Amino acid sequence: MPLVYITRRMHFSAAHRLHSDQLSEQENEQLYGMCNNPLGHGHNYELEVTVKGEPDPATGMVVDLTELKEIVQREIIDKVDHKHLNHDVDFMHGIVPTAENIVIAFWRQLKDKLPNGELHELTLYETPRNVAVYRGE
Amino acid sequence: MPLVYITRRMHFSAAHRLHSDQLSEQENEQLYGMCNNPLGHGHNYELEVTVKGEPDPATGMVVDLTELKEIVQREIIDKVDHKHLNHDVDFMHGIVPTAENIVIAFWRQLKDKLPNGELHELTLYETPRNVAVYRGE
Amino acid sequence: MPLVYITRRMHFSAAHRLHSDQLSEQENEQLYGMCNNPLGHGHNYELEVTVKGEPDPATGMVVDLTELKEIVQREIIDKVDHKHLNHDVDFMHGIVPTAENIVIAFWRQLKDKLPNGELHELTLYETPRNVAVYRGE
Amino acid sequence: MPLVYITRRMHFSAAHRLHSDQLSEQENEQLYGMCNNPLGHGHNYELEVTVKGEPDPATGMVVDLTELKEIVQREIIDKVDHKHLNHDVDFMHGIVPTAENIVIAFWRQLKDKLPNGELHELTLYETPRNVAVYRGE
Amino acid sequence: MPLVYITRRMHFSAAHRLHSDQLSEQENEQLYGMCNNPLGHGHNYELEVTVKGEPDPATGMVVDLTELKEIVQREIIDKVDHKHLNHDVDFMHGIVPTAENIVIAFWRQLKDKLPNGELHELTLYETPRNVAVYRGE
Amino acid sequence: MPLVYITRRMHFSAAHRLHSDQLSEQENEQLYGMCNNPLGHGHNYELEVTVKGEPDPATGMVVDLTELKEIVQREIIDKVDHKHLNHDVDFMHGIVPTAENIVIAFWRQLKDKLPNGELHELTLYETPRNVAVYRGE
Repeated sequence: MPLVYITRRMHFSAAHRLHSDQLSEQENEQLYGMCNNPLGHGHNYELEVTVKGEPDPATGMVVDLTELKEIVQREIIDKVDHKHLNHDVDFMHGIVPTAENIVIAFWRQLKDKLPNGELHELTLYETPRNVAVYRGE
Repeated sequence: MPLVYITRRMHFSAAHRLHSDQLSEQENEQLYGMCNNPLGHGHNYELEVTVKGEPDPATGMVVDLTELKEIVQREIIDKVDHKHLNHDVDFMHGIVPTAENIVIAFWRQLKDKLPNGELHELTLYETPRNVAVYRGE
Repeated sequence: MPLVYITRRMHFSAAHRLHSDQLSEQENEQLYGMCNNPLGHGHNYELEVTVKGEPDPATGMVVDLTELKEIVQREIIDKVDHKHLNHDVDFMHGIVPTAENIVIAFWRQLKDKLPNGELHELTLYETPRNVAVYRGE
Repeated sequence: MPLVYITRRMHFSAAHRLHSDQLSEQENEQLYGMCNNPLGHGHNYELEVTVKGEPDPATGMVVDLTELKEIVQREIIDKVDHKHLNHDVDFMHGIVPTAENIVIAFWRQLKDKLPNGELHELTLYETPRNVAVYRGE
Repeated sequence: MPLVYITRRMHFSAAHRLHSDQLSEQENEQLYGMCNNPLGHGHNYELEVTVKGEPDPATGMVVDLTELKEIVQREIIDKVDHKHLNHDVDFMHGIVPTAENIVIAFWRQLKDKLPNGELHELTLYETPRNVAVYRGE
Repeated sequence: MPLVYITRRMHFSAAHRLHSDQLSEQENEQLYGMCNNPLGHGHNYELEVTVKGEPDPATGMVVDLTELKEIVQREIIDKVDHKHLNHDVDFMHGIVPTAENIVIAFWRQLKDKLPNGELHELTLYETPRNVAVYRGE
């Protein structure tokens, strides 16, 4: 049976600040530069969720995209959209919200929630020029 | 010799309706929702064709992109552009035209037609937010 | 008071066929070419709605974008999304669905429905390369 | 002499919160919804600066785009990029940072700073779907 | 009768060098910087051609977009695509190929060639961030 | 430890000509067509640099994107931006500047220069529709 990768792209807007408790104030400023601004800044994030699997012979679908969209909306987007990622999001407490750490946290949030197919890849665009990808490796 | 992946992006516009003969009318309506509208709806599809191979030392090309473009145009685009995918396309008869099934059908249509390199991946954008990928697996 | 133009971009997917009752079969084929395909084809349309007005001094808004979005959704998008524009849309009966005619029909549908500001411009992308603009002139 | 409109597109990322001192807490919550989140959220803003004028016969330029870019960078981008628009920006104190109010504030910041040509239009993309335009009217 | 603006977007790739015969070598270097590189550099240009007019009541078209596309292809694109704008294009001899000058030259090339409607606006994207617009003013 | 892929997208504009010393004039013309134009043509290239690695537990970063950007700027962009790739770039002498050959040359230029993480993939967009990818295979 053929194996297909199906992707749904979602959107959210959020504020964040790069600041690590494991670094001194001075190290934080030096490492993160403008991204260490105390009150934070923000982005229009784009999140691509890729699921792999064999299309069902009757329906032609790996996963119902409407259902996938609702799951990602409920498990991730509703919790981060129009929020401050350092303060407002339970499942991100204590995590420096770099693109790398966000995409790992999202994976953990989503990986056991799919009705069909297997979560294959999450791609997070922080800006159109900064992108992080996690495949559960 | 280095192995390079070269991609050409193509465009077509088509109508389709999601409706499976293996499901009842009611199941079709419930599963496909708006996509089950009897007269169909449509999309501006984008198709990315990726070929892998070693660049020819004399020409620097894995495959002549102009030739690749003509082959994809003839084998796929001319047959689906400005058509209704459920009714007007010979090689898609009996297939529910989900993004998953379309990209598999296109792969079968194209895989033995390349003069150089090996077909590696087809990526089909149904919308900028819904994407299916097939690699012949 | 400063005059600002505020735009909300919306999306819908629809099928259509270019065919005029005022032309013979042969004239239709010759004029519209592929777009005259009997069962139609389709597009991912993008619609930009631009409202002009002075921002309210208390709220900083010309129009509440959430409210504008709901109005456009109800008056236009819900009636055309995942539909066949030649057959399924009441307010387009008897109209050849060229981009020009669609954008005029949308204007008439929307122009008396805004709570604040004045409808200034509708921009319809049939594809990223074909665009029609109407300003009520 | 021909009149040409020349545009430079710039980028910044910032946090903001929609909250008006002229409204009660309850009115703020009701009007701005998610955008009223106390710690704010954020966006990747795109700013287009359009200057009109007659190209200099010797240089073929309405305005030197490199110089225009440096002026916009110094007068606007350096002051808002990676900042919280409600707290960190002098020239925006007391302004509710809606797209409408931001684009007016930017115009006042920029309009007397151009070496050649006349400031014609500022276009601010808060997201790819929400856009405000100001022409000094 | 309603007045509609219809746009077709076209693409070409070309090399150019910014260098004015009316300036000294030193002035050229200082003014144009990297763009003065002797052998030139290049861009993927996008050209938007906007025609205004009343849609024909029988056809629903201001202008046949297929015909418009062929005219722009023949009069402009075929003459500049994959060319060096300083050397290979007859109608641009002696013109410094800034975006401003290119868009004026294109207007003169195109303005008397339209079968229907009136040429309203040419928009030239030199890059996605540098844009020139000419309206025949 | 989780393995993340982080990408930075960069931009440059350059001229090039496709012409191989290993082919006759006639073969060059026939194979490369318009791309063989003697004075060259040009593109707005986009280069995506993907680095893989485990995010540092203290900083949350695979690689400091600001540092990565500076390295790519110094090692590649400064050497090719606003240049003619056939004549002005030391590390590309004798190479036919197809997208395939450019991306291999860039890889060799960059692969030993990263402070953290491992170079995983280079993606070069010659146009939005022609793309080459190299992974060091």
